[in-house]
Amino acid sequence: MTNHRIALIPGDGIGTEVLPPAQRVLDTVGRRHGFTFSYTSFDDWSCERYLREGAMMPPDGLDRLRDKDAILLGAVGRPDVPDHVSLWGLLIPIRRGFRQYVNLRPVRVFEGIDSPVRGAVAGKVDLVVVRENVEGEYSEIGGRLHRGFPEEAAVQESVFTRAGVTRVLDHAFALAAGRRGRLTSATKSNGIVHTLPFWDELVAECGAAHPEVAWDQEHIDALAAKFVLDPARFDVVVASNLFGDILSDLAAAVAGSIGIAPAANLNPEREFPSMFEPVHGSAPDIAGRGIANPLGAIWSAALMLDHLGHPEAAADVTDAIAAVLAKTDVRTPDLGGTAATAEFTDRLLELL
Amino acid sequence: MTNHRIALIPGDGIGTEVLPPAQRVLDTVGRRHGFTFSYTSFDDWSCERYLREGAMMPPDGLDRLRDKDAILLGAVGRPDVPDHVSLWGLLIPIRRGFRQYVNLRPVRVFEGIDSPVRGAVAGKVDLVVVRENVEGEYSEIGGRLHRGFPEEAAVQESVFTRAGVTRVLDHAFALAAGRRGRLTSATKSNGIVHTLPFWDELVAECGAAHPEVAWDQEHIDALAAKFVLDPARFDVVVASNLFGDILSDLAAAVAGSIGIAPAANLNPEREFPSMFEPVHGSAPDIAGRGIANPLGAIWSAALMLDHLGHPEAAADVTDAIAAVLAKTDVRTPDLGGTAATAEFTDRLLELL
Ligand SMILES: CC(C)[C@H](C(=O)O)[C@@H](O)C(=O)O
Ligand SMILES: CC(C)[C@H](C(=O)O)[C@@H](O)C(=O)O
Repeated sequence: MTNHRIALIPGDGIGTEVLPPAQRVLDTVGRRHGFTFSYTSFDDWSCERYLREGAMMPPDGLDRLRDKDAILLGAVGRPDVPDHVSLWGLLIPIRRGFRQYVNLRPVRVFEGIDSPVRGAVAGKVDLVVVRENVEGEYSEIGGRLHRGFPEEAAVQESVFTRAGVTRVLDHAFALAAGRRGRLTSATKSNGIVHTLPFWDELVAECGAAHPEVAWDQEHIDALAAKFVLDPARFDVVVASNLFGDILSDLAAAVAGSIGIAPAANLNPEREFPSMFEPVHGSAPDIAGRGIANPLGAIWSAALMLDHLGHPEAAADVTDAIAAVLAKTDVRTPDLGGTAATAEFTDRLLELL
Repeated sequence: MTNHRIALIPGDGIGTEVLPPAQRVLDTVGRRHGFTFSYTSFDDWSCERYLREGAMMPPDGLDRLRDKDAILLGAVGRPDVPDHVSLWGLLIPIRRGFRQYVNLRPVRVFEGIDSPVRGAVAGKVDLVVVRENVEGEYSEIGGRLHRGFPEEAAVQESVFTRAGVTRVLDHAFALAAGRRGRLTSATKSNGIVHTLPFWDELVAECGAAHPEVAWDQEHIDALAAKFVLDPARFDVVVASNLFGDILSDLAAAVAGSIGIAPAANLNPEREFPSMFEPVHGSAPDIAGRGIANPLGAIWSAALMLDHLGHPEAAADVTDAIAAVLAKTDVRTPDLGGTAATAEFTDRLLELL
């Protein structure tokens, strides 16, 4: 029987509350489909550890994860720890150190979820944002001069490489070819005149190599507007690191599912483990109360199943998510219900 | 009687169709309130000129505008001319050469307009995006190396200066103080770790100097989501060049008013003329058919009236916009009607 070695990094806040439900779901579908999981939990890789020991994870953190088949992460961040410490001390080093250059963020409108957007009707909106995840605008290159003086300035370099852009575009075009065959590239080459014209050129090259995909491009300002005006028209949307970050949150909001949205940080070559994480943060305002929505973590676990070679098990999980939303009133407060995390998970497991 | 010297730059596409309605409105309110306009029209500063003569405007273009009290611009751009030629040859040199460092973009939900967002109810959403307009992510600094080879890369430098950020923040805080006293700053200092932490520091400094304003900050991804989930909570939103571009289009879409949205490019010190322009582009798909929505240009003219010291005349114009939408069915096709530009303008003038 295949066993998958999973690293669990619960992290901070509700991160610690949403991973146990995801594990319950994984073990259940594993039993049904004939595979198992063994978990190694890195419980203290968190802001608490940072406050105690001065680092979010041990110096050999990445080495401890290296032999795992995948990583499931809860959430990172706490109000009393600056983001550049918490995120750049744990989440981002894993994304970069393990060359997880594809960040995949599916968005669907589920029946039973009220979308804030009139056009976002269940069954109609089903898109994936493919975000470049390791270069671009999120760059360590830059700094500050004349600190504290009137002439102070900060500079930051965006870096787009042909290799870095092409590999994520290839992934996105291949994904579109296996879906509805439509791809939209996010750009802003009319304003950002060095990096994004280069991005556009590479999209055109990749598009020529994928004649089976109908592709177009939109400037990020117009594209954000179209996500609201006509979300159903999108299939695969490929975007740079920053634009993908914005568009995936926006799309999740349009779908009424910020608390449900999942993400896969993929190393498609499987040189290193990939990482799966809900898009919601650590939510300090509701942490510790047992009412966190587990669906983001559970859907992320489904993306992990897919990556581990179990697409049918993955589909079982997303079907159960759809079913619990469509067929029951049980849901956590963020979705307008009164259920606790555990009760919501129980109900989903019954439908699995 | 005060006379204002206005430079008209109709530009391309529907730009040429929306300025005459704006002029009619200006002349009408001028007569009522006791001031006049003299117009100098720069009709051939356009893509057509570029295709004929190799430049969007003459080499001494800015000098010809310098003695004007304000500039009213239609739209710039044509599919057969690259954006870096059309925009960087006309629009952006004016913004930068005349130090128009504040880009002001009001967004309102008008009665009679269907918003795509359920929470965007008439009378509830009334916000202004204050966008930094001359530095930041829209930078000329950068380039390409190893062109055409596998190791090719493009770099682009974002530059944020204390002087450049502080002056637009000051403007935004002062604006908020005169409105509902609430300001939200758009950031992404958790991912963009050099420029945006600096932005955040300057916001905090400015906030401390404006105790009468209640301010907060949101990361751009979460903020875009909140524009959809709860647009009514915002008053003044201040943002960098790129984030302001995205948020203002998004907010206009949320309000159902992409075709109505106006912009003021302000040089608050009045060293140079300020420029007023509808946010919609040249819309080549409908250009030449006389059906362009003139409200973006007319609302932009109202912002110009304000800037020229005629707030009451400006309010008359925005009241007429509200009235034509609330009280009549006459409207252009983009708003679901069948009226031509001229007929829509006639109706608005009757209500003025
Ligand atoms: C056309 C483009 C360069 C411009 C911008 O991004 O500034 C436009 O989108 C705008 O918002 O005025
Ligand atoms: C927390 C932040 C650095 C992160 C990002 O922008 O990548 C988050 O917003 C995300 O989308 O995973």
